[in-house]
Amino acid sequence: MYFSKSFIPILKNNPTEAKIKSHQLMLRVGMIKQSSAGIYSWLPLGFKVMKKIEQIVREEQDRVGVQEILMPTIQSSEIWKESGRYDDYGEEMLRIKDRQNREMLYGPTNEELITEIFRSSIKSYKSLPQLLYHIQWKFRDELRPRFGIMRCREFYMKDAYSFDLTDEDALFSYNKFFLSYLRTFKRLNLSAIPMAADTGPIGGNLSHEFIILAETGESKIYTDKRIFDVDYSSTLIQNSSLEKLRNDYEKFYSVTDEKFNKEEFENKVLAEHRVNTKGIEVGHIFYFGDKYSRPMNASVDFDGKKEFVKMGSYGIGVSRLVGAIIEAKYNDKDEIMKWPISVSPYDCAIIPMINKNDSSNLEKSNKIFEYLKSKNIDAIIDDTDENISAKIKKFNLIGIPYQLIIGKKTEGDFFEFKEVGSETQKLKIEEIASQISKAKSN
Amino acid sequence: MYFSKSFIPILKNNPTEAKIKSHQLMLRVGMIKQSSAGIYSWLPLGFKVMKKIEQIVREEQDRVGVQEILMPTIQSSEIWKESGRYDDYGEEMLRIKDRQNREMLYGPTNEELITEIFRSSIKSYKSLPQLLYHIQWKFRDELRPRFGIMRCREFYMKDAYSFDLTDEDALFSYNKFFLSYLRTFKRLNLSAIPMAADTGPIGGNLSHEFIILAETGESKIYTDKRIFDVDYSSTLIQNSSLEKLRNDYEKFYSVTDEKFNKEEFENKVLAEHRVNTKGIEVGHIFYFGDKYSRPMNASVDFDGKKEFVKMGSYGIGVSRLVGAIIEAKYNDKDEIMKWPISVSPYDCAIIPMINKNDSSNLEKSNKIFEYLKSKNIDAIIDDTDENISAKIKKFNLIGIPYQLIIGKKTEGDFFEFKEVGSETQKLKIEEIASQISKAKSN
Repeated sequence: MYFSKSFIPILKNNPTEAKIKSHQLMLRVGMIKQSSAGIYSWLPLGFKVMKKIEQIVREEQDRVGVQEILMPTIQSSEIWKESGRYDDYGEEMLRIKDRQNREMLYGPTNEELITEIFRSSIKSYKSLPQLLYHIQWKFRDELRPRFGIMRCREFYMKDAYSFDLTDEDALFSYNKFFLSYLRTFKRLNLSAIPMAADTGPIGGNLSHEFIILAETGESKIYTDKRIFDVDYSSTLIQNSSLEKLRNDYEKFYSVTDEKFNKEEFENKVLAEHRVNTKGIEVGHIFYFGDKYSRPMNASVDFDGKKEFVKMGSYGIGVSRLVGAIIEAKYNDKDEIMKWPISVSPYDCAIIPMINKNDSSNLEKSNKIFEYLKSKNIDAIIDDTDENISAKIKKFNLIGIPYQLIIGKKTEGDFFEFKEVGSETQKLKIEEIASQISKAKSN
Repeated sequence: MYFSKSFIPILKNNPTEAKIKSHQLMLRVGMIKQSSAGIYSWLPLGFKVMKKIEQIVREEQDRVGVQEILMPTIQSSEIWKESGRYDDYGEEMLRIKDRQNREMLYGPTNEELITEIFRSSIKSYKSLPQLLYHIQWKFRDELRPRFGIMRCREFYMKDAYSFDLTDEDALFSYNKFFLSYLRTFKRLNLSAIPMAADTGPIGGNLSHEFIILAETGESKIYTDKRIFDVDYSSTLIQNSSLEKLRNDYEKFYSVTDEKFNKEEFENKVLAEHRVNTKGIEVGHIFYFGDKYSRPMNASVDFDGKKEFVKMGSYGIGVSRLVGAIIEAKYNDKDEIMKWPISVSPYDCAIIPMINKNDSSNLEKSNKIFEYLKSKNIDAIIDDTDENISAKIKKFNLIGIPYQLIIGKKTEGDFFEFKEVGSETQKLKIEEIASQISKAKSN
């Protein structure tokens, strides 16, 4: 792909309306474009990142046996009246009347609809557990949408739901998602910590937020630094192994300001282990038993008895993660972004110095592009006639983690190659491809 | 995957509310579930098919150089007032007031929003052409939604848009999509024919519908049977080659009842070539010049002059195609469905006869499953205790194109293997895998 042919509308300066760095960067490099308050279009650069995040989220759901479905965005009010949340939800719910004057709404979450699907499909406890997820647009009519896609109105979210016969089974399901979330954020190259949380409008009595560290985060975090060393790589999808994992985390004090208690923090955490920083919520899991299944009559037959199923729900903000990764990875002082290679819009930027009347560097670029392509490495060539330092500055913002520069210093088979934020090396193309491939497979 | 663990809620009988065969089958085998009038949830079986169709559509867009973006579902009324369509669109547009009392709507199509994105991003003719697409949910508030997902309210669609400097360039873009659509439907194993069409509410003066043949189709078709032999396999993405392709089609009479003229049909088509059948629209492309760019002021600078860009739009109904394929492929008299392998929810059904107290057939199934998986063949095992003929009947409906039966007649290394609709063969597992792999790679 040539940069000149791609739809990447770069702004010269930081947009003044953006207050946080993810919002600034996303507008600046043309990842998104606002269409109305809190509603955005995703342009190719932003779209590619979001799709890669979505795919990682999907693979980690599939890996623990969750089945993918897709519920519609527009729901009937009827099921929300059954659960009792129609009136409770307030003005954040976008309420709609269709042409027949039926009360509809744009789903802000899907506990009701999934319960309705379950109750009309599953009759016997033998079909349990059922773990279902979907990745779909949601709408919450925020009074003051701000911070770009971090607090917007239309957002893309993975929400999963579990259905079990007993509390014990349901806890097993909950713990599967707990592990699955840790794996997901790891693949996004984020340090995420699970924290006991309030359940809010979803309800229930067991809940964890997953928070990633970012200096600009919205939540204050108080924790024990040893929590970052908890190792889940050998955790198995078995009751005891998952329980041990939960315990490994829960033995460390770890709360957001909501639940912060200074005395407790100082009692439980040695001064040298205390971490007091900021973070961003990127996932939230809930166990709420029969809160929805009872009023909505979602039950299974168990030895002739009717048992209301025990449910949990599990959310990851897919579009929000794009912003969260920027908040965690973008050095806005030096204007240097570096995407984790797992979600980067391209693997490598090929940056030739282009002189009028001399197409040799562009030809070299094309050859390199084809070679990298043959190694399954996706590159973009900056074929514009900007000067080389302007190009490098631009790509430092775009955040593709590797830059291959074809300029004056290019000699024979050796190219200037740089991992963003590291020193420039002079390498042969084979070595460059092998470095990138190695990073991709990690 | 075990059938007993999958979320595939099968109905014993055809649902009486469904009037056409795709609607019947999709409800019967649990592909979809209605959540309110004209609004459906996609359960795992239906979801898998739709995702595979989506991916084929995406690959064929990418292949002709169209870039993927994603526009939101909710739009502001402002841009529709600019284009003049806000009042025209009538009650099919789902109109919404948000909490600030702003007039919003659920996008039924995206000409306005893409024009807005274009005009604020592209300034110079040097950045042309621009070809952009997205795959997103749309809403049309049909007065009488019916026929399941064939005429529903919330539907999934690929819509693409082209921006060019001149009519000639724009025609080149149009013809790229023309070819791309033929390739797309071919990969879905559908016989699609392009037909000159009216432009309707989109506007413009050049338009083609892509119609697939299906006896239950909504449109009558009058054409020359030689049109099915037009060969586009060697067409290149070049002006002259694409024009030749257009001519190759246009020399044959081919219209829907909208444009049918008996005399013309009989004059132009020899009796022995006449085809008079029914079809379903699965794609529609439009060229409309500056119909939107002029009122919305989307122009580029060309040698100091302001030129309104020439636009076209190009739609494929992704969710609709699921139903269209069923209409084309489902033999409802014998209750036998066969998905094209390119979009089938699974490649092969493993159907063991399961006796109580004898798990040997299930163990064989597991081994076969693992072997097929190692060959990149995705299978589902029917581990239920239904009798074998009930199982086969069920899988004839589900439509997975290959069945591997492990029953009484299984001897040694030879398994009963059947391509749905063909004779049973007795084959070794290696031969079975090789047949399926061959079909997949075609």
